[in-house]
Amino acid sequence: MAKANSEYRVEKDLLGEKKIPANAYWGVHTSRAIENYQISGFHLSNAPDLINALAAVKMAAVKANADLDVIPRNIADAIVKACREIRSGQLHDQFVVDVIQGGAGTSTNMNANEVIANRAIEILGGVKGDYKLVHPIEHVNASQSTNDVYPTAVKIGLISAISGLLEAMENLKEAFGEKAFEFRKILKIGRTQLQDAVPMTLGQEFSTYSVMIGEDIQRVKEAINLILEINLGATAIGTGINTDPEYAARARHYLEDITQLGLVTAADLVEATQDTGSFVQLSGVLKRVAVKLSKICNDLRLLSSGPQAGLNEINLPPRAAGSSIMPGKVNPVIPEVVNQVAFEVIGNDMTVTMAAEAGQLQLNAFEPIIAWSLFKSIFHLTAACKTLTKNCVLGITANEALLNQRVQESASLATSLNPYIGYDQASEIAKTALKTGRRVSDLVLEKGLLSEQQLSEILRPEVLTMPRRIKL
Amino acid sequence: MAKANSEYRVEKDLLGEKKIPANAYWGVHTSRAIENYQISGFHLSNAPDLINALAAVKMAAVKANADLDVIPRNIADAIVKACREIRSGQLHDQFVVDVIQGGAGTSTNMNANEVIANRAIEILGGVKGDYKLVHPIEHVNASQSTNDVYPTAVKIGLISAISGLLEAMENLKEAFGEKAFEFRKILKIGRTQLQDAVPMTLGQEFSTYSVMIGEDIQRVKEAINLILEINLGATAIGTGINTDPEYAARARHYLEDITQLGLVTAADLVEATQDTGSFVQLSGVLKRVAVKLSKICNDLRLLSSGPQAGLNEINLPPRAAGSSIMPGKVNPVIPEVVNQVAFEVIGNDMTVTMAAEAGQLQLNAFEPIIAWSLFKSIFHLTAACKTLTKNCVLGITANEALLNQRVQESASLATSLNPYIGYDQASEIAKTALKTGRRVSDLVLEKGLLSEQQLSEILRPEVLTMPRRIKL
Amino acid sequence: MAKANSEYRVEKDLLGEKKIPANAYWGVHTSRAIENYQISGFHLSNAPDLINALAAVKMAAVKANADLDVIPRNIADAIVKACREIRSGQLHDQFVVDVIQGGAGTSTNMNANEVIANRAIEILGGVKGDYKLVHPIEHVNASQSTNDVYPTAVKIGLISAISGLLEAMENLKEAFGEKAFEFRKILKIGRTQLQDAVPMTLGQEFSTYSVMIGEDIQRVKEAINLILEINLGATAIGTGINTDPEYAARARHYLEDITQLGLVTAADLVEATQDTGSFVQLSGVLKRVAVKLSKICNDLRLLSSGPQAGLNEINLPPRAAGSSIMPGKVNPVIPEVVNQVAFEVIGNDMTVTMAAEAGQLQLNAFEPIIAWSLFKSIFHLTAACKTLTKNCVLGITANEALLNQRVQESASLATSLNPYIGYDQASEIAKTALKTGRRVSDLVLEKGLLSEQQLSEILRPEVLTMPRRIKL
Amino acid sequence: MAKANSEYRVEKDLLGEKKIPANAYWGVHTSRAIENYQISGFHLSNAPDLINALAAVKMAAVKANADLDVIPRNIADAIVKACREIRSGQLHDQFVVDVIQGGAGTSTNMNANEVIANRAIEILGGVKGDYKLVHPIEHVNASQSTNDVYPTAVKIGLISAISGLLEAMENLKEAFGEKAFEFRKILKIGRTQLQDAVPMTLGQEFSTYSVMIGEDIQRVKEAINLILEINLGATAIGTGINTDPEYAARARHYLEDITQLGLVTAADLVEATQDTGSFVQLSGVLKRVAVKLSKICNDLRLLSSGPQAGLNEINLPPRAAGSSIMPGKVNPVIPEVVNQVAFEVIGNDMTVTMAAEAGQLQLNAFEPIIAWSLFKSIFHLTAACKTLTKNCVLGITANEALLNQRVQESASLATSLNPYIGYDQASEIAKTALKTGRRVSDLVLEKGLLSEQQLSEILRPEVLTMPRRIKL
Repeated sequence: MAKANSEYRVEKDLLGEKKIPANAYWGVHTSRAIENYQISGFHLSNAPDLINALAAVKMAAVKANADLDVIPRNIADAIVKACREIRSGQLHDQFVVDVIQGGAGTSTNMNANEVIANRAIEILGGVKGDYKLVHPIEHVNASQSTNDVYPTAVKIGLISAISGLLEAMENLKEAFGEKAFEFRKILKIGRTQLQDAVPMTLGQEFSTYSVMIGEDIQRVKEAINLILEINLGATAIGTGINTDPEYAARARHYLEDITQLGLVTAADLVEATQDTGSFVQLSGVLKRVAVKLSKICNDLRLLSSGPQAGLNEINLPPRAAGSSIMPGKVNPVIPEVVNQVAFEVIGNDMTVTMAAEAGQLQLNAFEPIIAWSLFKSIFHLTAACKTLTKNCVLGITANEALLNQRVQESASLATSLNPYIGYDQASEIAKTALKTGRRVSDLVLEKGLLSEQQLSEILRPEVLTMPRRIKL
Repeated sequence: MAKANSEYRVEKDLLGEKKIPANAYWGVHTSRAIENYQISGFHLSNAPDLINALAAVKMAAVKANADLDVIPRNIADAIVKACREIRSGQLHDQFVVDVIQGGAGTSTNMNANEVIANRAIEILGGVKGDYKLVHPIEHVNASQSTNDVYPTAVKIGLISAISGLLEAMENLKEAFGEKAFEFRKILKIGRTQLQDAVPMTLGQEFSTYSVMIGEDIQRVKEAINLILEINLGATAIGTGINTDPEYAARARHYLEDITQLGLVTAADLVEATQDTGSFVQLSGVLKRVAVKLSKICNDLRLLSSGPQAGLNEINLPPRAAGSSIMPGKVNPVIPEVVNQVAFEVIGNDMTVTMAAEAGQLQLNAFEPIIAWSLFKSIFHLTAACKTLTKNCVLGITANEALLNQRVQESASLATSLNPYIGYDQASEIAKTALKTGRRVSDLVLEKGLLSEQQLSEILRPEVLTMPRRIKL
Repeated sequence: MAKANSEYRVEKDLLGEKKIPANAYWGVHTSRAIENYQISGFHLSNAPDLINALAAVKMAAVKANADLDVIPRNIADAIVKACREIRSGQLHDQFVVDVIQGGAGTSTNMNANEVIANRAIEILGGVKGDYKLVHPIEHVNASQSTNDVYPTAVKIGLISAISGLLEAMENLKEAFGEKAFEFRKILKIGRTQLQDAVPMTLGQEFSTYSVMIGEDIQRVKEAINLILEINLGATAIGTGINTDPEYAARARHYLEDITQLGLVTAADLVEATQDTGSFVQLSGVLKRVAVKLSKICNDLRLLSSGPQAGLNEINLPPRAAGSSIMPGKVNPVIPEVVNQVAFEVIGNDMTVTMAAEAGQLQLNAFEPIIAWSLFKSIFHLTAACKTLTKNCVLGITANEALLNQRVQESASLATSLNPYIGYDQASEIAKTALKTGRRVSDLVLEKGLLSEQQLSEILRPEVLTMPRRIKL
Repeated sequence: MAKANSEYRVEKDLLGEKKIPANAYWGVHTSRAIENYQISGFHLSNAPDLINALAAVKMAAVKANADLDVIPRNIADAIVKACREIRSGQLHDQFVVDVIQGGAGTSTNMNANEVIANRAIEILGGVKGDYKLVHPIEHVNASQSTNDVYPTAVKIGLISAISGLLEAMENLKEAFGEKAFEFRKILKIGRTQLQDAVPMTLGQEFSTYSVMIGEDIQRVKEAINLILEINLGATAIGTGINTDPEYAARARHYLEDITQLGLVTAADLVEATQDTGSFVQLSGVLKRVAVKLSKICNDLRLLSSGPQAGLNEINLPPRAAGSSIMPGKVNPVIPEVVNQVAFEVIGNDMTVTMAAEAGQLQLNAFEPIIAWSLFKSIFHLTAACKTLTKNCVLGITANEALLNQRVQESASLATSLNPYIGYDQASEIAKTALKTGRRVSDLVLEKGLLSEQQLSEILRPEVLTMPRRIKL
């Protein structure tokens, strides 16, 4: 049998003994996971929201267990203290398992159990590895199974991460709103199918983006509601085997206290334990956010194209030299990086979909990739919204003179004359304008179809861009 | 210039003249679309919900237009009558444009305008093509643009199609519920990660499926709420150009009357005209339904595997000879077809995502493929739920004796002994049971760890499958 | 027991008796499939390439069986005759099973067996349903299983469908090539990241599209090679149970004769029977084609945007009135429909991927949705290429004067001066040109940096658009 | 103006001055990128193959430039030396830009230019930032544009990364091959659609996996061929502006020397500069590998399910305690992690597809997310293959006795009797066997249908699992 020394201690599981670095808070189960999963180079510590959530769940569980005499109060107190330390940001570097892992989250749960146990042992005056004082499974994991702890923690962690996303989206929405106000009087030609359509204001165009983001904020908030439903108390497969009948409610109650969230215990825990529907829904909503952001950034890149041989309607703030070969070239690099994040989030949604579909019988073994894909999407969308707001939207300027000139010259003004001179005459005017390059108003006046006063009334910007009663 | 005869009439658009079959209700614009789009072999008539919705929108618009003196009352009445006929199922064969089409739905709108105009002309005593009586654009399309009519009609059509899906899902949910009740006392071994876990009832397993479908019904209903928001009155790009300020509210009001739906006019019509977020969300929810159905069918195929070299826990009703070479083989063909529909719906969601992301500036030109993908997903999911309910779930039977025997022999019963004999002794018992094939109960009794009475109390089915207070 | 009459005959399978319409060539197995699968509204007859391929496989099998004395020669001759009729286009309407079906293709195989048997019975002078003369399973399906017949037929059918796609792609490639030649001398400003970059010819731009399609043609041809490998002779799971050792080679030999394809029998038939890798690869290549087509159509829509407030570099031929509200508006409807087909094909690839991943053990039960998705992608891509070629590309014209003017005015010409006046001076020139709107050449001359002759040499179109040795 | 000190130096670009840490090899352009892109937490240094490839391209370019007198030989020599150091693994920590970035790779190229320039400056005896000695753009980037350097480097980096994947796949293939040999005589029941089919050997089952991986190795190698085609010399948009006519060939020649790869300069550089088809194809092939790996792991998890209430045909080596609540449970954690990597790779393929489709005109601005998605897929697939080989496949054992018993008891043996006793009698035997649980052989003997000798001949394992000539 191996012997501990100053460099390592020896721990044992059903596969045998393993040497664990003496200063590690994690133990033999985590050690197995390190060996098994060398995949992505990203570890649990890269998802701090998840670690904090795990600590919250463990704290809630141990409090309920102490109340129900399942574990002694003094051990419970030490565990609670260890969990509080983790939630204050300590020991995160001890969460070393790869985010992509087999075992349905068991390694994540075990990593948490071991770190908390060893820290609690220290709090009680023991040395790491002395699991007679505090046992990772018997005490820290009492009344629990990975299968209820892990999805519960993932949900709470996601809500935490989403709060950052919502803030970033709110700021982006406001930035677009500010620009919409700033551009509210700038008239321009609106486009459908990339072809000139009818006039609108640049403010209306930017307001649209603000509204879009605002609606997506609502959708994200609704998706949060679905993940407030947890299965804590389900243990292995949802039957709650080896838990006290009061445990689930009590643990949830404590968890609400700790997280300040309005949680709901699922009505059918067997269903809740195997179902990943709320993750699929959340991922679908994040995909929706990505689709909108990408669409907005496509528009920004299009509207700022040029400067000479493009639309050249707006200017994005320059953020970097655009080319090593073309002097003075500046590219829309911020929208471009947001587009790419959007493409990644859409790919992540596919990963979540595949993983959700692959669940079998009483458990979905693929929750780790679901969780990681969601965290990644949230983190990257948050970063994308931030850079888009700060490094792009707030600095956008408009080429007002050019926009105004294009409206004056646009054959599309003929549309607004339909109610006054008829569709057929309007068509003739439009055709002639396009062919000759002359202005619609000049042609109308020349033909004596309307008086100068009537025309200037009809072509007033504020009436061109909204419904109006037609009085001839 | 071409001349009409008994076989065809001549119509004209900006590209020139075209011969139209004399008996066709559609006209020159539809004729162009037929030439341009020979893609899928599926025509608008394959989405009757959409045609009925188009007629509803046209009817509502014409009523509002008549109220506002935009078109004469007698023409309006004829148009309303024509729309009613379409909504009663007539003239659907005149909707001949391919469901996959360019032009952002213009061809669909034009097809409707022409069919309605020509039928209204007949109602007024004219002959098809005499557009001085009723004009497809000036009258049928007055105050409208494809860009508000088309998405509004698509939404109303989708809601109609979804009502069929919801009914099929409700029936499937009930079928699983019935089975759950029937199987409520049959004990079996639950599985996590395909490995034996702890006991549950077959009723709990089937109840899960019922609950899952029930939750998805809720999600689908929530997604409907998003598509109750319409942009009718937006016209070309959302500014409402060439509409009366009262038109949008009035038209929506009539549309609510006609459809009996609680519709909402979008607060920002410019945003609403270009945004496809609600379609993306609906598609995401349909994908969620697909993921769940596929998971359930995977389980049904797994649980019914064998009959000898498989799990053999349940029997699906035989629906067809399974093999031309293996006598007596019966395969799970109904779950298999549902799996495939699910894979298709997930693919359709990708199509919707791509199309939504590709929208530019004031309009998404790709709404036709979004619409068709959604209709297809809804129709196929409905069909899948129906065949699954009728041809599979309702006829499922359980191999109760085998299930019971497996529970008795299962080493996994040791888990339930943890609280009474401790984790370590339970582990020893489990190991010995697996190695020797002897029963957990026999080993416990032999070792004198518990009395026969205690043991039968602990292993009672009704306590194995739920939480309980542990009294030693 | 039911009795046959003039309207129906009675057939029997392991589930019992069923009435079959007297004039139907299909029988009881097909009848079960009709009941089980009412999903998509598309039937096998919508994939005529598949039906012809099934007939080819059956013909090859029966010839091998006759040689090996597995079935009598006169029965074989009748079966061969029936298959020939099908391959000449007859009886396709008898292939009535939904293209989306459970059972791993068994219903498709059974539909073929029954139609062929009943036609062969007639050829031998019997009446439909008299299976003592020719039996669908014992004779038509002898030495076969759905599990080798179906994938073999799907592959041969796909190759047939692909030949149509390749022809359409070839025509599209040539159309772009013609335009490239036509536009070879038209100078324009190339763009990177939608920003003005450096000059190129419009011919180079269009040549690119021709080359892209040409490369994709090569990739499609390579993907065909993978599906020339078949598993005929594998029977149920690849072990070739109940076949003669000479059967596989002999049947393949006949199949090569019939199809004129260079087929290969897979080296490991167990692997080949469960593997869908070649379908995944083909689907991936079709996705690649879709991505390229979509990119090209995005470009065409962008380059033709305007006509006033857009790039307005080229004109697509008008194909339909673009708007019911905006007089004279014409939209890029043909590229738009191609984009949508591309999005659909990309979605289909996801469906294929999901279905392929879901295969279990010795068979993939989901081949029908794989097959149908591939056929759909091929058919729709073919249609898209055709309409793009005929209704768009061949009619494209260039706005040469505008393009030329933009080059003359472009500040980006400064890039070409780098080697002669240095990067710093070139930058200054570019900045001034952008700010003042003056021409680069005028500024260079004004500053005396180069002589008029030097400048005209440097800015010659033919040297601006290719590498050149720099002599100062 | 800012002044340098011992902590930082001041650099300048078109946006103004910036302080750069004095010890940083990167400069102002990299500094902008750090600010702009704080997205993923992964930096270029996480893709060492890409960094080495960048150094190779820069080295080849500078050699060509020196030959053509575009830059002085002594500067070239210093740059070459710097590049060699990077390729030997030095300075990788200076590649600090986020892997997800806007600008089409410009920041990556600039990061390389700056690091190489500053190292070359040191080599020439200067201090970092003294760009008069060696200039990042004028010298390191001479005759180059990001638009040819970046995709060329990405391709070479991918080939390098793929070589690791191929080795891991080769080892996996061999591991399955070893197991196939070890299990070659173990008879078992094969399954189609999860239902008992006909006998095969466990060796045939494992050989299948070996063959699958072997085929995928071939497909990956073919995909490499496509990325051997590079566009070095294309500069900005493919016209080769500002390069010597001999540069492209010379630079490619040097690059072949450095990388020992057989590279091809694309025939049409304008096309090659904007086309991402070869990345899409490679991604599709990686997706194919993922699909196969996932399918194999699904099978391994299924075959090892149980141990009591599952198929229990094989045993995976235990790698970790499976449960904190269920004593002794061991889960298939290694196949599970491989499944998850597969789902991720499939998601990555979607990201690549979206990014490729979004390319516009002469450049695809989204190559960074394409590159990173591909590197991620390759790295994770490599890791997955490694852990699957070492921690799972090599340790798999078979439950031979149970498998043998199941074959003896299987009603499916009746299939092999078809040719001897006829399909109808075989069906009767099969039905009776299933109903009574008696053996097929006993029933045949009892009915006197075959002699004991005949029967034992027919049921010999070696003839059950391959074709044979039927002699009655």
